[in-house]
Amino acid sequence: MIDLNSDLGEGFGVWRLGDDDALLDVVTSANVACGFHAGDPSTMRRVCAAAAERGVSVGAQVSYRDLAGFGRRFIDVDPAELADEVLYQVGALDACARAAGTAVAYVKPHGALYNAAVHHEAQARAVVDGVRAFGALPVLGLPGSRLLAEAEAAGLPAVTEAFADRGYTPEGALVSRRESNALLTDTPAIVDRALRLAERGEIVAVDGTVLNTGAASLCLHGDTPGAVAHARAVRDALTSAGVHLVAFARPIRP
Amino acid sequence: MIDLNSDLGEGFGVWRLGDDDALLDVVTSANVACGFHAGDPSTMRRVCAAAAERGVSVGAQVSYRDLAGFGRRFIDVDPAELADEVLYQVGALDACARAAGTAVAYVKPHGALYNAAVHHEAQARAVVDGVRAFGALPVLGLPGSRLLAEAEAAGLPAVTEAFADRGYTPEGALVSRRESNALLTDTPAIVDRALRLAERGEIVAVDGTVLNTGAASLCLHGDTPGAVAHARAVRDALTSAGVHLVAFARPIRP
Amino acid sequence: MIDLNSDLGEGFGVWRLGDDDALLDVVTSANVACGFHAGDPSTMRRVCAAAAERGVSVGAQVSYRDLAGFGRRFIDVDPAELADEVLYQVGALDACARAAGTAVAYVKPHGALYNAAVHHEAQARAVVDGVRAFGALPVLGLPGSRLLAEAEAAGLPAVTEAFADRGYTPEGALVSRRESNALLTDTPAIVDRALRLAERGEIVAVDGTVLNTGAASLCLHGDTPGAVAHARAVRDALTSAGVHLVAFARPIRP
Amino acid sequence: MIDLNSDLGEGFGVWRLGDDDALLDVVTSANVACGFHAGDPSTMRRVCAAAAERGVSVGAQVSYRDLAGFGRRFIDVDPAELADEVLYQVGALDACARAAGTAVAYVKPHGALYNAAVHHEAQARAVVDGVRAFGALPVLGLPGSRLLAEAEAAGLPAVTEAFADRGYTPEGALVSRRESNALLTDTPAIVDRALRLAERGEIVAVDGTVLNTGAASLCLHGDTPGAVAHARAVRDALTSAGVHLVAFARPIRP
Repeated sequence: MIDLNSDLGEGFGVWRLGDDDALLDVVTSANVACGFHAGDPSTMRRVCAAAAERGVSVGAQVSYRDLAGFGRRFIDVDPAELADEVLYQVGALDACARAAGTAVAYVKPHGALYNAAVHHEAQARAVVDGVRAFGALPVLGLPGSRLLAEAEAAGLPAVTEAFADRGYTPEGALVSRRESNALLTDTPAIVDRALRLAERGEIVAVDGTVLNTGAASLCLHGDTPGAVAHARAVRDALTSAGVHLVAFARPIRP
Repeated sequence: MIDLNSDLGEGFGVWRLGDDDALLDVVTSANVACGFHAGDPSTMRRVCAAAAERGVSVGAQVSYRDLAGFGRRFIDVDPAELADEVLYQVGALDACARAAGTAVAYVKPHGALYNAAVHHEAQARAVVDGVRAFGALPVLGLPGSRLLAEAEAAGLPAVTEAFADRGYTPEGALVSRRESNALLTDTPAIVDRALRLAERGEIVAVDGTVLNTGAASLCLHGDTPGAVAHARAVRDALTSAGVHLVAFARPIRP
Repeated sequence: MIDLNSDLGEGFGVWRLGDDDALLDVVTSANVACGFHAGDPSTMRRVCAAAAERGVSVGAQVSYRDLAGFGRRFIDVDPAELADEVLYQVGALDACARAAGTAVAYVKPHGALYNAAVHHEAQARAVVDGVRAFGALPVLGLPGSRLLAEAEAAGLPAVTEAFADRGYTPEGALVSRRESNALLTDTPAIVDRALRLAERGEIVAVDGTVLNTGAASLCLHGDTPGAVAHARAVRDALTSAGVHLVAFARPIRP
Repeated sequence: MIDLNSDLGEGFGVWRLGDDDALLDVVTSANVACGFHAGDPSTMRRVCAAAAERGVSVGAQVSYRDLAGFGRRFIDVDPAELADEVLYQVGALDACARAAGTAVAYVKPHGALYNAAVHHEAQARAVVDGVRAFGALPVLGLPGSRLLAEAEAAGLPAVTEAFADRGYTPEGALVSRRESNALLTDTPAIVDRALRLAERGEIVAVDGTVLNTGAASLCLHGDTPGAVAHARAVRDALTSAGVHLVAFARPIRP
């Protein structure tokens, strides 16, 4: 039993990114962009409606305010402001989700904020503060991250995820995207890793170390060439193997 | 018995506009900017908290997406997108308000959107569609405006407001700000008009015509020199005359 | 002898739109987005460098400040501010162009500003004022437009363009995109119209009226499916017919 | 002989910050915001015109793209993009300046970019790369900063500045604004420091160490209460003491 999550609704205005509809047929949880790194209100509402229709859970993919950088650059935001920005984004998406017959079921930080929240205590706590100010939603993140530690300390469900297509260091961190072995592109290898993750919670690091992630969710990417094909292959292999695909946070019907 | 409303939280980042705290001591309803023409998440939360503390109702002052123009330029937005933008803004403010112990109690469009919604049917309906997508909130606007007609048609409470410091045409429209008699600056005259409005629902147009506005709310400005003094003088005169100052939409305590 | 122009550099940050490199091999003039409706500094510089390399002229595709709406919504901007925004955009692009070994050779408004400048006297003049404040650059626009009349009155070269893939009214205006015959998609038809335009300056309106546009430039689109193929087919047909393809404003080598 | 510089044009749209006109009567060099942390095209042009009128040199106050944070938060921008953003800003301001009868005479980074460029080699070099891509303009910065080292290495004039109203560490760095002795507010003390700086190039650190800054320019602030009075007092004291106030980069008359 595992959840499949993916980043969705990451266009802005006339611009599109990834194939939202294709991925919504694959995942059980949709991390919907909230307008700060991507996502405009109409896209948000449309993706929420499509998710609601398919019984896919909606999560708030909160981010730094950075359309020009797609939220991929660390910003040294004041933690109190960051918490308020998280609150703002979750509230905006929740309104779109409710209008579409669902509601925000969890929160996952995006891009540079996701990376910062692994180690940056003040920003990790700010994200959690922002979530708590909205409500007791689960937070999705990296095992061992400061973010999940803060979520737990605050009494929020802390949910771990893993990446079948990303290289891991022996310490369980993601290999930097600047390294050559950061990203796997071979479909059978990705599928094998997904199966091992779903069945035993294990992932093999770049040096062969077996990591026990215990991940409750598997993150699938949709913005790279072939990503949708990978995502479908993973889903098919998991269901064939009898793995039950189910959202860690049930889709909300208000 | 009348409501006093004012635009608040209209700074952005380092920039400030008007004296929020002074006006919160005067009004019964705070139209809080939602980030599209002004207002950042921290300002929104702080103003909501200050309003909650004083028992002032929080309204969503929704706007075109136009920080550079402060929402004062008509934008020919697609109505479906406008509805979604209204929904987004109300949701974002509601999250800030709930974190501050209150909730959005009504909606009032800002600036050029307010003006457009007087005559522009598609945009008036879009605002109402956006509000309805969020919930059955009252809409505050000009008597006789398309906006209030659409609100009524949609089953939303339609609340009228008047301006003690603005010139009116004999037809009940506001005199354009480009005209010399658009704005009254004489305190006793403003106070007299406020009293007559509160007591008899009447306002005298620039040509002497007596208009029966029946306004349930009186809008006070806070962003011009002397505005706070005018607002205080109006409040004092109204309370001295025994007028009961009460929000048309009671402050929400979730 | 005719010029071929196309809108380029219309991505923003992570988002891409159209195939800049393919179109740069087709056109003689590149209308480069300047950051207000699309275009970030790195994209601007890269497109200018690619244009300079191919001897393609660089034009400033100036726009309303409207990333969310891709500059496609009319904004009732104050004309004095609009002139300054045009000046800002041309200056920013010119710096990018000079760093890439060329310079801005002409100006063409984008989207809703292009449409507004056909009839809206104050905005048409504002665009011209902004251009003049930068320098005596040619302005590219629709025959009969207010924009070109203002450009001429101001002593700027006024250059006309036509569209081989757009329907025309008998009066010479573009058929609204809301109409079914707004856009031609049949390659041979588009090629035929381009040839007739280049050879005789004529275009046939939707009712059969022959319009004499006398256009000095032909606008090719790059953002729709098949657009690049159409553009290539037009270029090939024109060169085969012995039409000399040359920029109306020679590429600048500072 | 010394230059006086100050940050100007730091409003945006309806919002104002500081008293531009008052400071333009005090300084010899105006660091004009270019639209990324503050500054809209109309403000830029107006400030340039007012500077040109008074014979004040115009500098480009380049910044991270961060209106919401006023450029005060470090952003981990890709250096190549940062260089292009600097180029874009300088070009945009130069167009405004030329329309106002002057031109950009130097460049000074703003806020968090100024601070980053003290130590962050890649960003310091990116700023210099952006300036060089525009032209061989002088760069204004902190003595000993990476920024000025990169400017010198690139063959650009590197100009040092000091702050009469900021506390210095014994190593010559500015005391963090989080410390109590970061900012001096006593007018006579500020004036004394300004005189010593102008006459002997010296500034006394918080522990009494005498630092030899050799600063060619003195930075005056305009955005804090009393700032304009301090600036005027410094100017008066310097002129009374016979110090010649002259821009390090002569105002350009194109």
